[in-house]
Amino acid sequence: MAKINKNYSKLKPSYLFREIANRTKAFLEKNPEALVLRLGIGDTTEPLAPSIIKGLKTEVEKLANKKTYTGYGDEHGDIRLRSALKDWYKKRGISLDVSEIFISDGAKPDTSNISSIFAPDTVIAVQNPVYPVYVDSNIISGRDNFVFMPCIANKNFIPDLPEKKADLIFLCSPNNPTGVVMNKKQLKKFVDYAIKNKSIIVFDNAYAAFIQDDDLPRSIYEINGAEKCAIEIGSFSKSAGFTGVRLGWTTIPEEIEIEDGGMGALNKLWSRRKATMFNGPSNIAQEGGIAALSPEGLRESAKIIAYYMENAKIIKEGLEKIGLEVFGGVHAPYIWVKTPKGISSWEFFDKVLQETQVVGTPGEGFGKYGEGYFRLSAFGNRENIQRAVKSIQKNLKI
Amino acid sequence: MAKINKNYSKLKPSYLFREIANRTKAFLEKNPEALVLRLGIGDTTEPLAPSIIKGLKTEVEKLANKKTYTGYGDEHGDIRLRSALKDWYKKRGISLDVSEIFISDGAKPDTSNISSIFAPDTVIAVQNPVYPVYVDSNIISGRDNFVFMPCIANKNFIPDLPEKKADLIFLCSPNNPTGVVMNKKQLKKFVDYAIKNKSIIVFDNAYAAFIQDDDLPRSIYEINGAEKCAIEIGSFSKSAGFTGVRLGWTTIPEEIEIEDGGMGALNKLWSRRKATMFNGPSNIAQEGGIAALSPEGLRESAKIIAYYMENAKIIKEGLEKIGLEVFGGVHAPYIWVKTPKGISSWEFFDKVLQETQVVGTPGEGFGKYGEGYFRLSAFGNRENIQRAVKSIQKNLKI
Repeated sequence: MAKINKNYSKLKPSYLFREIANRTKAFLEKNPEALVLRLGIGDTTEPLAPSIIKGLKTEVEKLANKKTYTGYGDEHGDIRLRSALKDWYKKRGISLDVSEIFISDGAKPDTSNISSIFAPDTVIAVQNPVYPVYVDSNIISGRDNFVFMPCIANKNFIPDLPEKKADLIFLCSPNNPTGVVMNKKQLKKFVDYAIKNKSIIVFDNAYAAFIQDDDLPRSIYEINGAEKCAIEIGSFSKSAGFTGVRLGWTTIPEEIEIEDGGMGALNKLWSRRKATMFNGPSNIAQEGGIAALSPEGLRESAKIIAYYMENAKIIKEGLEKIGLEVFGGVHAPYIWVKTPKGISSWEFFDKVLQETQVVGTPGEGFGKYGEGYFRLSAFGNRENIQRAVKSIQKNLKI
Repeated sequence: MAKINKNYSKLKPSYLFREIANRTKAFLEKNPEALVLRLGIGDTTEPLAPSIIKGLKTEVEKLANKKTYTGYGDEHGDIRLRSALKDWYKKRGISLDVSEIFISDGAKPDTSNISSIFAPDTVIAVQNPVYPVYVDSNIISGRDNFVFMPCIANKNFIPDLPEKKADLIFLCSPNNPTGVVMNKKQLKKFVDYAIKNKSIIVFDNAYAAFIQDDDLPRSIYEINGAEKCAIEIGSFSKSAGFTGVRLGWTTIPEEIEIEDGGMGALNKLWSRRKATMFNGPSNIAQEGGIAALSPEGLRESAKIIAYYMENAKIIKEGLEKIGLEVFGGVHAPYIWVKTPKGISSWEFFDKVLQETQVVGTPGEGFGKYGEGYFRLSAFGNRENIQRAVKSIQKNLKI
C-alpha cells in the first residue's frame, strides 16, 4: 500500500507566489475593469540583450543542421560556459576550476536540491525573512532542524550568527526580500564561524549584478577562507533576464573539507547527484549564457540592470515622499516597505491591491520577521512603475 | 559540524554512462588514430524537424521584443503545451485534464524526483535490468527498500509481478535496455495488482514513439483502471530529438486514490513540489514542444523515428548474420545482444571496443540480470551504423 510523504503537510498549503496569484485573480474577477500593476514577483520584463538573442539563435541553427546537431550535453554543463564562468570569477580575483562549477537550470532547483548531499539531521540556519525555497525544500526532504537568523530593522536587516550551532548556513545577499546587502566584514564573520564550527555556507548571490558599490562583495569567494567552507549559487535569471529561459550555476570548491567525507567530498557528491538525476540545462539556454558572459553581453545586460535600478529609485523615493518607511532598493531590485500603523503584511497586501491596484508581496510570506513589511519589485516597464507609484501616492489611505 | 548524506556511498562509484565515457577516453588515448563508433548512449543524432526549429525561433524572437518578452512561466508548464498534450492523449482515447499534466525539463529529473511525494519506507519494485536512474535516485533519498523484477530470456524479458508486496512499481516499456515492449494483457496484470494492493505504478513511456504496432500500448492509460493507479512519465528526448533541448512531462490523474491522502493527493503534492522547487522548463524548449506536437511536427518527427528504426533493423540483422543472439530492436531503438560463450558484459564491452572500435553498453550496468548481455543503440547516422555493423562482422572474434 503506497503512502504519501507526510513532510508536505508541514508546509503552508500554498506556495507564496501561488497565493498572491490566486488573490490577484480573485480581485480581477470582482473588478474586471481594473488595471492591475504587478510588482509582486521578482520577474524580469525587459527583452534579452541583442548578443544573447544572437547566441540563442546560433544554437537553434546548430540543432537544425546534421553536421552541428548535438544531443545530450555534459550533465555538469557545457565546458565552454563553465570556462566563461571561470573567467568571470577570475576577473574578480577568484580562482575556480571548471570542475568546481556546475551549470543548472536556475538557482531555484539547485537551492532546493543542495541539501541532498548533507546528512538528514543537518541543522540548517536560515535568514528570516528570506526567499521561502530554502526552508520549504528542506522540509520536504525531512531536513527540518532550523535555526532562524532574524533580519530586523534595528540591526539594519543584517543577520547575527546563528544562536544554536548550525551545520549548514543559507545566506542570500543582496537579500531577497529586504534588498539589503552584506559587506565584507559582515560576511567574514560568517566565514570565520563556518571554519571554526566546520559548517558549510550556501551563498545565494542571484542578485549580485545589482550591487552598485565595488567594495561590496558580489561573490562570497571575495572573503578570505570562503573557498574552504562555502558553496555559491548563481543565476542568469535577474542579471541577464533568463527567468523564463532558465540557467544558473553552483560552485563547490575542491578545497572544502567535511569531517566525515574529507576534502573534495562535497564536490564529488554533487557531481554524482547531477550525473544521476539531471541531464544538464537546455543547450539553447547554455549558448545564451555564453553570449551573456561575453564583453558585449555583459555591457548590454548592464544597461538593463541600470534601467531596473532606476525603477527602484523611483519606487523608493516615491514612497518616501508620502511618508512610508522604505529599505533596500539601492543594491538590489527589491524595496522593503514598513507597513503603516503596524498593520499586518497580508492586510496591507489586500489594502494596496484594493485601493491602488498594485500587487506587492506580503513580508510575512518570507518568514515571521517579515511580518509588518511589504516587498515591491523594481522589475517592470518604466511606465508601469511610474503608474504604480502614482497610484500609491494618490490612492493609498495611510 | 556538517556531515554528508551517507546514502551516496551505497551507489556504485561512477554513473554507468560516465564509466563508459571514461573507458572510451582511455582507449582513445592509447589508440589516438582509432575511429570509435559510439552506439553506447541512447543519444539522438539527427537534426530537429523543420517545424520544431521554427517553433524554437519563434520563442527566441518573442524574447527579443519588449512587447512579447515573458519571464517566469507557470511552474507546471505552459498551458498551451499542456493543452497540446491533452489533445495528444485524447487522440488515443485517453481523457486527461491539463491540471493532471506537468511539464518537466526531461524524463530523467522527474523519474528521479517522483518518489519524493511518497513515504520514506516505500517498497519499490523495479525491473532488472533497467535504466539505472530509478534505483540510484531512490538510494540517494534513502528510499532503498527494493524488490527486483527479473526480465530474463526464458520469460521473453517481461517481468513477473513483484515477489514481495510493493508500494511503488516502476515500469519502463518499451524497456531500456532490452528493447522489449509489454502488451496490453501483460500491463493489465500490473494495473490489477496495483489496484488490489493499493500500489502506484510509475510508467516510463519515453520510447513509446518507437512502437510499430498499434495494438501495443503507447500509454499506460490505454489499460482499463490505470487512471486510478498510474503516474506516467513522458519525454520529447527520443521522440522529437530533444535530448539536449530538455523537455518532458509527468501525468498524475486526480482519480488516483491513496490510502492516507485520499483522492487527488498525489496530484496536489507533486503540484506543490513543482511550485516550490522548480520554475518550469525553458520557455524556448516549450515552444519547440508545442511545434513538435503539431500535425506537421509529428509527421516530420515520425520520419526521423523511421530512420532510427531502419538503423535498428540493420544492427539486428547484421548481428544475427554472424550468429549472435539478439533481442529488441523492433519497437524500440535498443538491441539487446547476448554475449557469446557466456563472457561477462564488461568483458564483452572491452572486447568489442578493442576489436571493433564500437562502443556499446554492458548489460550489467542496468542491473544483475543484465549480466551476460550488451546493449547497442540504434541512434546514429546511417553511415556510422553501417560501419559499426561491418566492423563487428569483420573484426569481432567469436
